[in-house]
Amino acid sequence: MTKNKVLQNKEEIYKINEINVGKDFLFIAGPCSIEGYPMALESAKAIIMNGANILRGGSFKPRTSPYSFQGLQQEALDILKRVKEETGVPIVTEILDPRHINNSLDFVDIIQIGSRSMHNFPLLKEVGMIDKPVILKRGFQATIEEWVYSTEYIYKEGNHKIILCERGIRTFETYTRNTLDLSAVPIMKRLTGLPVIVDPAHATGKKNLILPMCKAAIACGADGLMVEVHPNPSQALSDPGQQINFTEFASLMKELKPIIEFFR
Amino acid sequence: MTKNKVLQNKEEIYKINEINVGKDFLFIAGPCSIEGYPMALESAKAIIMNGANILRGGSFKPRTSPYSFQGLQQEALDILKRVKEETGVPIVTEILDPRHINNSLDFVDIIQIGSRSMHNFPLLKEVGMIDKPVILKRGFQATIEEWVYSTEYIYKEGNHKIILCERGIRTFETYTRNTLDLSAVPIMKRLTGLPVIVDPAHATGKKNLILPMCKAAIACGADGLMVEVHPNPSQALSDPGQQINFTEFASLMKELKPIIEFFR
Amino acid sequence: MTKNKVLQNKEEIYKINEINVGKDFLFIAGPCSIEGYPMALESAKAIIMNGANILRGGSFKPRTSPYSFQGLQQEALDILKRVKEETGVPIVTEILDPRHINNSLDFVDIIQIGSRSMHNFPLLKEVGMIDKPVILKRGFQATIEEWVYSTEYIYKEGNHKIILCERGIRTFETYTRNTLDLSAVPIMKRLTGLPVIVDPAHATGKKNLILPMCKAAIACGADGLMVEVHPNPSQALSDPGQQINFTEFASLMKELKPIIEFFR
Amino acid sequence: MTKNKVLQNKEEIYKINEINVGKDFLFIAGPCSIEGYPMALESAKAIIMNGANILRGGSFKPRTSPYSFQGLQQEALDILKRVKEETGVPIVTEILDPRHINNSLDFVDIIQIGSRSMHNFPLLKEVGMIDKPVILKRGFQATIEEWVYSTEYIYKEGNHKIILCERGIRTFETYTRNTLDLSAVPIMKRLTGLPVIVDPAHATGKKNLILPMCKAAIACGADGLMVEVHPNPSQALSDPGQQINFTEFASLMKELKPIIEFFR
Repeated sequence: MTKNKVLQNKEEIYKINEINVGKDFLFIAGPCSIEGYPMALESAKAIIMNGANILRGGSFKPRTSPYSFQGLQQEALDILKRVKEETGVPIVTEILDPRHINNSLDFVDIIQIGSRSMHNFPLLKEVGMIDKPVILKRGFQATIEEWVYSTEYIYKEGNHKIILCERGIRTFETYTRNTLDLSAVPIMKRLTGLPVIVDPAHATGKKNLILPMCKAAIACGADGLMVEVHPNPSQALSDPGQQINFTEFASLMKELKPIIEFFR
Repeated sequence: MTKNKVLQNKEEIYKINEINVGKDFLFIAGPCSIEGYPMALESAKAIIMNGANILRGGSFKPRTSPYSFQGLQQEALDILKRVKEETGVPIVTEILDPRHINNSLDFVDIIQIGSRSMHNFPLLKEVGMIDKPVILKRGFQATIEEWVYSTEYIYKEGNHKIILCERGIRTFETYTRNTLDLSAVPIMKRLTGLPVIVDPAHATGKKNLILPMCKAAIACGADGLMVEVHPNPSQALSDPGQQINFTEFASLMKELKPIIEFFR
Repeated sequence: MTKNKVLQNKEEIYKINEINVGKDFLFIAGPCSIEGYPMALESAKAIIMNGANILRGGSFKPRTSPYSFQGLQQEALDILKRVKEETGVPIVTEILDPRHINNSLDFVDIIQIGSRSMHNFPLLKEVGMIDKPVILKRGFQATIEEWVYSTEYIYKEGNHKIILCERGIRTFETYTRNTLDLSAVPIMKRLTGLPVIVDPAHATGKKNLILPMCKAAIACGADGLMVEVHPNPSQALSDPGQQINFTEFASLMKELKPIIEFFR
Repeated sequence: MTKNKVLQNKEEIYKINEINVGKDFLFIAGPCSIEGYPMALESAKAIIMNGANILRGGSFKPRTSPYSFQGLQQEALDILKRVKEETGVPIVTEILDPRHINNSLDFVDIIQIGSRSMHNFPLLKEVGMIDKPVILKRGFQATIEEWVYSTEYIYKEGNHKIILCERGIRTFETYTRNTLDLSAVPIMKRLTGLPVIVDPAHATGKKNLILPMCKAAIACGADGLMVEVHPNPSQALSDPGQQINFTEFASLMKELKPIIEFFR
């Protein structure tokens, strides 16, 4: 296994608003894509009310097909900024291109590097040079060793505020979208000392697996969860099959709260 | 997905000694291979004392290399029989060959079909024709659909006492031995109505992942666990790297008991 | 990589009828399953006329689902025996169970161990103890190392007449049924010294890939090919999508003959 | 499978210097990384002399580890420009970042998008907007469908001069670096109508598999090959294990020439 030359294997606690990253449980929720101001605001309110502490919302969407919805891009960023001003909720959004890093991201609290970008080394170097937390999702094709190295690409440039996110790996199984590799949670925590969160919906692609996989993630030590919530999933412009609605989210949170308390 | 023509999707509770299968938590522990009478008896006592309720012990070993230890075979069965007579613990052992099914197995409480035999259809048919619980491990190369079909091979012949066991699938990842697919637990429970247990040590091949993966398995609904315990793992004739010793097992059980209680 | 303790890494030439195995190109063709005497005889004549030198025909079929056609079994063996008596063509058929090895197989020239049986160690040992050529197909999830070890299971018991067959491995790709790993041809030839043949139709699951993959197999050194041919593929009781009809086979052979000559 | 909305499924022939792309066989060779002017010039001369028609040489290297050699970057481009001026050989080099597309690439004849960038959609769009041939390597974890979509990302922006390159996919097999999927050659030719070349050394990671896999690629219809050649492979700053030296390259070309002639 890789000899990590940079990572210090010790957690450092820092703040995002009131949240102590490295100590508090991170519950990130929100729509796959920002599709307009009303749905973004409504989503923010719904997730906050049910106990999530960070809003996610896609601005630039990495889509397999060039004919799929590519995100509202700058317009989405403007919407997220308004939502943050109104609700105070910290914001995470994904970027795909080193050129996305500019003033328009100033209000964003956490930058996400998605699964398809884990091997985009110029992008990793670029987010390594800014002073803002970064969620680094595991490439769906990436080994543990490669994920550690991609973490080091960021860390080496000076940015140590990295949150890792397991989101499933590509295997021969077709019943689920990908195979959620929960062993990555304890492994990456040990190897890097960084917080590790889990995204069960992208991994499994099935709504009815979100609850059991959230429970399992908490039980094996995950520091947070990321769940896609949409006012009306069947009408969503991306990932309609794996987003849950506000009622489903309320019910999920009700089930998970005692489990989070039990384990932390 | 497969339209299951036979499985009724309803759990039927039956007894193995005092254990209500389908209701009680199954904690199966014991050495990878039976290497002699003293170590078998010692293992049985150690696992019972710490709260496990079924003894596992390999008699016929499916080894990748013909030069590896192939199990004590009939001698191992004789040892297991003596251990059962002395301790009363229910016994599970693996068979590889339809010709293994004969009188010498009469005392065995559960027959195990291992991962490499999940596609051995003559063997599945044969265990389908006897009246004894069967643990059907997932082939490390098997899809959910194929696992369901192999379950039906047994069920169709009349034997409905099937316990499924997730033990990891083969993926590109090399940091762990295989990738434990915990999503298979809720999926197989829904698709078949049968109890599903988890074997975290064969899946990950790493001792320090057994505890977190046991926790995760319990949290997502597993009906039991299987763990390899050996008096002196470093001297074991098979799987030295993933068996734990009695002290480690005691400590594991102490950590897991409150979690099992919390979730069931 | 495995240190092969038994294999001598030298090809030994032996005869099956007029064929010098280890020197002559083996062209094995015939229906996936023997469905009756007329279709078996007709197939034998068609493949011989077009230059194939061995007839394949499934008697015992390893099917994922217990509800699929399981082969005509003993009846199929009787049919193959008659076809051999009438045409003189050498016969290969697959067995699944150590109990299949008995007098009724005497007339069979080559026994096939299929992909799902490559890890059936009792079966490997059993065919290691008879004096008859064995085709050992690669497990669709078997590494090169495991395939070598399974070869040694047979070899170690005394049977050195082993022919290896690459038939594709299970990967994440779903466009083809499996992924044909042609690098296995030169690798296994070097590691074992045994003849290696290729089955492109099971690997790809697509008729229109048979020709280009046969060409590639010949070019990288394959010692033979196995192709499924059926009088009326769309009506076949198994694998209807990947068998070709007599006309297609004639056309395939016409294309391949000059290529086989060029490379050998 | 994807309904390709843009690709016309017809080959269009165009020129790179004297080469008719879509008709002539493309033999691309050269060092993994440009390490200096003398080795670049020497390599160019060696590959031309032996019949290759395009020089490859890495300027920006996508390395898993941030501690590995990252390429000479702009300096490498300057060297390649000089080598082209002196020898006239067409040049292909890889870019990783949309910001690499600028005047300093003007002299480059073909831009390569590497395996780790196949899902870098901003980069694909950018090379879609320039008038220069692009080699699009298959992502090592990309399905056929995803590869077609990435092709369409480029095509849709107006650049139709795309050359596809199969370079192996990531599977469970560890004996080879990746698994070369030669079935992708006829599949992608049919689905896109574009030329498809093969890179056997990156796929297998083993020098002694280059020759048989080149032969197989030619036999199944590849329109070209890419091979890494270095004056002194054991001293190479990247990929020392899979580059061949000038003598080995001369011998490879001697073996391949009659095969290329036979098949085209």
